[in-house]
Amino acid sequence: MSGGPTMAKNTMTGEERLIERLFRPIATHPAALGLKDDAALLAVPAGRELVLTADMIVCGVHFFDDDPPDAIAKKALRVNLSDLAAKGADPTGVLLSLSVPASIGGAWLQQFADGLRDDCEKFGCPLLGGDMTRTAGPLTVAITALGTVPEGQMVQRRGAQAGDALIVTGTIGDAALGLELRRDPERLSFGKLDAAARAQLTRRYLLPMPRGALASALRMYASAAIDISDGLAGDVMKLASASGVGARIDAAQVPLSPAAKAAVAAEPALFNVTLTGGDDYEIAAAVPEKHLAALRAAATQAGIELTTIGRIVEGEGVEVIGAAGEPIDLPEASFSHFPAPGQGRK
Amino acid sequence: MSGGPTMAKNTMTGEERLIERLFRPIATHPAALGLKDDAALLAVPAGRELVLTADMIVCGVHFFDDDPPDAIAKKALRVNLSDLAAKGADPTGVLLSLSVPASIGGAWLQQFADGLRDDCEKFGCPLLGGDMTRTAGPLTVAITALGTVPEGQMVQRRGAQAGDALIVTGTIGDAALGLELRRDPERLSFGKLDAAARAQLTRRYLLPMPRGALASALRMYASAAIDISDGLAGDVMKLASASGVGARIDAAQVPLSPAAKAAVAAEPALFNVTLTGGDDYEIAAAVPEKHLAALRAAATQAGIELTTIGRIVEGEGVEVIGAAGEPIDLPEASFSHFPAPGQGRK
Repeated sequence: MSGGPTMAKNTMTGEERLIERLFRPIATHPAALGLKDDAALLAVPAGRELVLTADMIVCGVHFFDDDPPDAIAKKALRVNLSDLAAKGADPTGVLLSLSVPASIGGAWLQQFADGLRDDCEKFGCPLLGGDMTRTAGPLTVAITALGTVPEGQMVQRRGAQAGDALIVTGTIGDAALGLELRRDPERLSFGKLDAAARAQLTRRYLLPMPRGALASALRMYASAAIDISDGLAGDVMKLASASGVGARIDAAQVPLSPAAKAAVAAEPALFNVTLTGGDDYEIAAAVPEKHLAALRAAATQAGIELTTIGRIVEGEGVEVIGAAGEPIDLPEASFSHFPAPGQGRK
Repeated sequence: MSGGPTMAKNTMTGEERLIERLFRPIATHPAALGLKDDAALLAVPAGRELVLTADMIVCGVHFFDDDPPDAIAKKALRVNLSDLAAKGADPTGVLLSLSVPASIGGAWLQQFADGLRDDCEKFGCPLLGGDMTRTAGPLTVAITALGTVPEGQMVQRRGAQAGDALIVTGTIGDAALGLELRRDPERLSFGKLDAAARAQLTRRYLLPMPRGALASALRMYASAAIDISDGLAGDVMKLASASGVGARIDAAQVPLSPAAKAAVAAEPALFNVTLTGGDDYEIAAAVPEKHLAALRAAATQAGIELTTIGRIVEGEGVEVIGAAGEPIDLPEASFSHFPAPGQGRK
């Protein structure tokens, strides 16, 4: 052996090769430094503030192990983009930490990366950095998303005022019903749905749609907002509690898709699932009456359904009122993986 | 039942209660909004750029399941702070995503949170936000750390120039030896170490020490830097490759602790482990000769050992030279959980 270099000049570890092949094409933002450094370097534009959120999804908890790899990547990204949207933030980029069981190979990871790339492009939110490691457990996808708002304009949970209209985007409950359907496809009520309705509910669980198209309008017109990830009733409660007010939800006004309506018609008890189930990734917001028409116009222009479902009121707590004016009792306001004593679902 | 609120006014899910109890006390930065919103809101000071890094650690891969909970939290934080330090960045805060197996209870989580709080205070890096979820697999801790540098002053991997001195902080190889010791305490060579030496190696694997105290000096004096997480030889290779230069490491100059020296004396083959094993979390940097004395003075003031171990040279690749001038062959330049074809350790 000569006295020359004793290590191959292009030695890359398997991890580096994978990152180069799978993720470098998505790291289009200059801040990512081509994923070739220890860290990303981001210049935040003058007059903007940074909005940061982190959500992790775990196989067997947030998705099924036979979900398509590209859909898993998209869900991981979208649940984070949903938070940015609810805060009125325009996405900047994401950091991805991925732990991968040995059962998952290169082809699966390529599909995952393809799905991530598609959505990073679709939502204008490139990869800035991240980490990849092995795990003896289920695939785990942790994303930190960064966005920006003009200084002082983040839409917070607090800020709702008594008298504000309570609005939601899209339709509520589809994803929670889609999860029930995935868990128990033979359940009688789901058997009464046609194939298209079943597919719609399943799709809404598989793949949420973040409402980023409404972000700038929320900044202008909403006094408070939250993304509905843990169930409508519970998340409205969080907004009301943070704002020091109460809220009244008119159950008959909660927008259900035709598929959800059919499911509830087949099994009325499923209505509570639509109000308290998770994974809607729609936005609930408090909107002063004087801004309601403008927000509605912006939503129409963005192709997003917007429905007034109740009102912010003095006091505290969330009251859900049925069609005949009767209070509806919800034993579980929202979904939690960590049930509190005497609370929580099985 | 009256027509009053049908949901308790302070309904919190188990997850919210845990977050409030464990993590809100650490969320001291105003950007965290008390962990009471969907996102953090951070104003980056004028003239500063943001440095972002994400590292995830997984039980059974990066730590042992009987490691103390507070040490696990500290390691998760410190491996991220090490990246910030190597980039010359001053820490701002972190986002934490935690997936928790059912076997882990509140007392364990409290110790974890206590450890995180201690280190967040110690390193001036409060919690800004995060997520907590269940997992059927091992505990997984994903942290995204944010820091800042004055505009244009991040220390990158690229930038090293032929002629620069190659320096490292601290001592090299202790953590990799500590891991070998954890895996095989009965290994003959470790049996020759005294209890203090064994404890020192074990401690260095358990708990790295990020070199943030040197961050501002690195900005002033280093032309390129990297944190040594995957092994000295491989990480110097990454720095050299990013800079379009080569590097020569004088093996005899690589600083070993007395404990590591004793281990290598007992089993000379362990020397390669010190050069290629991971988890040092020291910094390797290229430093122009004219700045070397100033950087050394800053290191002394910070109480950090700093050693010149070689030189940046024209060309490419990393050459490791033994005490007699002979080239040392390293079959594995650095550690990877994803071995490339024909490469990587068992």
